[in-house]
Amino acid sequence: MLSYKAPIRDIKFLFEDVFDYYGHYQKYPEYAEATPDLVDAIFAECAKFSENELLPLNQSGDKEGCHFDNGVVTTPKGFKEAYRQYVEGGWQSLSHPVEQGGQGLPPSMGMVKSEMMGTANWSWGMYPGLSHGAMNTIQEHGSDEQKEVYLTRLTEGTWTGTMCLTEPQCGTDLGQVKTKAVPNGDGTYNITGTKIFISAGEHDLTENIVHIVLARLPNAPAGTRGISLFIVPKMQVDQQGNLGEGNNVTCGSIEDKMGIKASATAVLNFDNAKGVLIGPENKGLECMFTFMNTARVGTALQGICTAELAYQNSLLYAKDRLSMRSLSGKKAPEKVADPIIVHPDVRKMLMTQKAISEGGRAMIYYAAKLVDEIESAKTEAERKAADDRLGFITPILKAFLTELGCESASHGMQVFGGHGYIKEWGMEQIVRDARIATLYEGTTGIQALDLLGRKILLTRGVALKDFAMEILGFCKDHSMISGYSHKRQMNKFIWPLSKAVANWQQYSLRIALKARKDRDFIGACSVDYLMYSGYIVMAYFWAKMAQAAYEKLASGVEDRDFYRAKIKTAEFYFERMLPRTRSLAKTMMADPKTLMQLDGELLSFL
Amino acid sequence: MLSYKAPIRDIKFLFEDVFDYYGHYQKYPEYAEATPDLVDAIFAECAKFSENELLPLNQSGDKEGCHFDNGVVTTPKGFKEAYRQYVEGGWQSLSHPVEQGGQGLPPSMGMVKSEMMGTANWSWGMYPGLSHGAMNTIQEHGSDEQKEVYLTRLTEGTWTGTMCLTEPQCGTDLGQVKTKAVPNGDGTYNITGTKIFISAGEHDLTENIVHIVLARLPNAPAGTRGISLFIVPKMQVDQQGNLGEGNNVTCGSIEDKMGIKASATAVLNFDNAKGVLIGPENKGLECMFTFMNTARVGTALQGICTAELAYQNSLLYAKDRLSMRSLSGKKAPEKVADPIIVHPDVRKMLMTQKAISEGGRAMIYYAAKLVDEIESAKTEAERKAADDRLGFITPILKAFLTELGCESASHGMQVFGGHGYIKEWGMEQIVRDARIATLYEGTTGIQALDLLGRKILLTRGVALKDFAMEILGFCKDHSMISGYSHKRQMNKFIWPLSKAVANWQQYSLRIALKARKDRDFIGACSVDYLMYSGYIVMAYFWAKMAQAAYEKLASGVEDRDFYRAKIKTAEFYFERMLPRTRSLAKTMMADPKTLMQLDGELLSFL
Repeated sequence: MLSYKAPIRDIKFLFEDVFDYYGHYQKYPEYAEATPDLVDAIFAECAKFSENELLPLNQSGDKEGCHFDNGVVTTPKGFKEAYRQYVEGGWQSLSHPVEQGGQGLPPSMGMVKSEMMGTANWSWGMYPGLSHGAMNTIQEHGSDEQKEVYLTRLTEGTWTGTMCLTEPQCGTDLGQVKTKAVPNGDGTYNITGTKIFISAGEHDLTENIVHIVLARLPNAPAGTRGISLFIVPKMQVDQQGNLGEGNNVTCGSIEDKMGIKASATAVLNFDNAKGVLIGPENKGLECMFTFMNTARVGTALQGICTAELAYQNSLLYAKDRLSMRSLSGKKAPEKVADPIIVHPDVRKMLMTQKAISEGGRAMIYYAAKLVDEIESAKTEAERKAADDRLGFITPILKAFLTELGCESASHGMQVFGGHGYIKEWGMEQIVRDARIATLYEGTTGIQALDLLGRKILLTRGVALKDFAMEILGFCKDHSMISGYSHKRQMNKFIWPLSKAVANWQQYSLRIALKARKDRDFIGACSVDYLMYSGYIVMAYFWAKMAQAAYEKLASGVEDRDFYRAKIKTAEFYFERMLPRTRSLAKTMMADPKTLMQLDGELLSFL
Repeated sequence: MLSYKAPIRDIKFLFEDVFDYYGHYQKYPEYAEATPDLVDAIFAECAKFSENELLPLNQSGDKEGCHFDNGVVTTPKGFKEAYRQYVEGGWQSLSHPVEQGGQGLPPSMGMVKSEMMGTANWSWGMYPGLSHGAMNTIQEHGSDEQKEVYLTRLTEGTWTGTMCLTEPQCGTDLGQVKTKAVPNGDGTYNITGTKIFISAGEHDLTENIVHIVLARLPNAPAGTRGISLFIVPKMQVDQQGNLGEGNNVTCGSIEDKMGIKASATAVLNFDNAKGVLIGPENKGLECMFTFMNTARVGTALQGICTAELAYQNSLLYAKDRLSMRSLSGKKAPEKVADPIIVHPDVRKMLMTQKAISEGGRAMIYYAAKLVDEIESAKTEAERKAADDRLGFITPILKAFLTELGCESASHGMQVFGGHGYIKEWGMEQIVRDARIATLYEGTTGIQALDLLGRKILLTRGVALKDFAMEILGFCKDHSMISGYSHKRQMNKFIWPLSKAVANWQQYSLRIALKARKDRDFIGACSVDYLMYSGYIVMAYFWAKMAQAAYEKLASGVEDRDFYRAKIKTAEFYFERMLPRTRSLAKTMMADPKTLMQLDGELLSFL
């Protein structure tokens, strides 16, 4: 049986000691309600709902899976009831605008909510989670009428939404989209085509589903410049939002997948389904990209949800399971053997999981603060600064954290030994569920091209320089010269971090120069470069957490063990994980020739 | 649908050009029959059986799984018929002694057979595969009568065998074994206890199953020194081997696992089951360890089976799937997009898979030659030399190749994008099936302790030194100074390899010194050390393959593309995989304090 307790203490540490979230909320009048008391109370409720309602459905949902019968999808037992409670509890509307019936709390609080619920049950969380894409699209690009009809119902959660991008012949390469939209002359369009891999594309949780569909108008330009966005509801609705008859959208099947089995992944057939245009004609992809970052941070979250769930459970097992004696002398002489947590190799796996989970959480909460700033910026300059920063770190968060989430899940399983491979313990499910995260919302390879191609090379390194300046500023503020005694202790983090950031900038420049001469250099180095960047970014946040912990300890705080554990975990990270950059620095600079010189036809001789 | 073609060309390369297998066979009169013609013919037949009979049952076996009904286990559709053909074809007896009805061909040929069959269908291959453990035990430690009754039937394959070690409370730590054996006074024993995770522990393929069971005699010493081995057949047999009534061995259940679902993993309840002692009393573990190496090489094989199957399928997909255009210019302008194989990042994943599969195969075939030498050594000194070498590389092969097998499977899935996560393509099954390999037959952590603790520290580095001398001898023979023009080209491999081997020895010494002062250093560094060692060993075999390829090219051979591809893959390995040692060298030397200073109770604050 999987166990989960929401990491309330860690969240409090990040909110109060590391990121000064309450100072941040106070800057925006619309977030005035988000006081420590309210936030704590909401998170406590959220923890309760996640632990008591969602967690118990996690393994049973995997076992039962979704049912498909002639176009009708039934979610696993308990999912519908949990969703009803979720809507009644007002969870869907938590951080959405008051105008559409939302509670207007900051998006960052919504991120924490998604984290807890997603850790307890990622598959369940995808049903309400996928709505956010549709909601953001309508919020940003919809007409007032579209907002009134669709957004209010999505906000309260009586309907859910989807994003229908992928088709059988294309996922990443959306320029190949074939779905057609033919205008009816009355402002509506007839949408025809097949969409696949549509998460929450069909289910029994709500009476309607609002599909946001990429399609081509007649005579639209070829490729990515000829794609428009349409709202296509499962059930037709009138202008007051009353449900009418069924639209011609049918679920052809749901996928039989490796994991996230309780999340229905639908094939949707649109056969002259009625839809309305949202946003300008042929600008569908641009419209979608306006909130691609938040969607991707939402997927990055899966990395830390996985890491946390795997960690909590392997830690419990490692304290409990007795095997062999410590090489440095019996630790539990009264028992038949020592608990495996005493073995350094097991400890290494646990510490790695801990460093990923807590380090990743800090990265996500940093991003969440930027999302708040983007939503509520007072000036366009302020909004753009936050948006550029978020755009820069998003591909790192998405790819790096989901890759590390898979690593953590695998360590968790390894801690369990053979028992990790058996379904009843739940560890193998975490491994299976985690694996989708490096594939959807843009694979790791696509994130890496986004980082290096668009965010580094296209901006001529400005975004990197800005972020590096932030890190170096932190290093300067907390290096020995400045004074306080705990700052000397920070040197063990500050020096390697400064050096890493300097290297990061230098390598980035060298890569830019090489990419000019050989375009293949970009793709050849991009994934290694992204992972390299990820380890440095995570080092920054571990240093920040260590610094906050030293600060608290110096202030004479009471729960000293908590802060000391943070510092020791930071030490672990710097000694045992940050050095992974050494290999990556070497391989990312290798000649693309080593990849491309062998003709594709000569890759095998069967 | 998964595709598989046996890599006959690659096997021929290793047999003829790299390892001179035919010269090796000629050294032993008992292998005189193993001429190129016969070997080629057998491998061709084996390829046919694997591709045509076993591969088609791979995905269907996973889907159907094994059935359990009141103690009776039914294997998936087609398994029994394939096993019948296997036995009729004489495959089980291929490399077993003529005295027990075997064909007396070299063990190395049996390894190649296991590779092909295991790649086509690992789960199926476990039923005959598990017999080898039982066969080796009886061959080595059994009485003549035991050989006559059990071994002949195991050899022909009419019965299969198992190894019953694990119990609910212990897997690795066999000193905790509780199963009891009470003598009946007539040479038989009553065995009582529960064994779990017994692969092929119950099935419908044969009329009898021969369990080799670890159990304790009355008054046996506590711990590992009080364990004896027993033969406990599922059906009792008389002295002529005729089946009698059922023994008191019942299958309580089979495990619901992440993968290898078509392989039955049984819980076996022994309730005063009749058994006979094999080997001396209380020496059960020593007896088992005599052939632990071959069993573990058999599991290492799963790493390359996985890597090969994943590679073959992702390569086909990468040539077929069209997405985006190459950054260095359109490669297939006539198509709607370029095949993804043109993208450097996709190519990197494919090349990594190729390097793992072919490099790993070379490592396995090297080990297989040692197994031949051990089996047929003319002198004890010769046997011991081969045994020491095999003992040294076995933990590396087992852990390193199974870890890399998982990596290759994961790359294969990633090449497929979202389609890799869907069952129909078969890639997600490879990932699931592969994952067991780092857990059973000793986890990666246990292999690492075996390597560093027993094979390095306990021998005071002799085994490492011997192996390093072999590599350095190769380097000396093929460095520039020696002459031929192609030897200059070898320098790009020889120099980094020599340097890596020198570092390997130095680090090993430093670790030994540190381990003297701090026993926790061993466990803290062991897994990183094993992986570090693995990359260097694989580099040796890639250099050997490149050297053989240069040699053939210089000799004016015809299929030059094949040999050039080998050299280019070696270049890839040295530029993009060997540098992984850089990070490992750093992290393995880190202070164990970073792992152990945080009290186990302070690892979380929930």
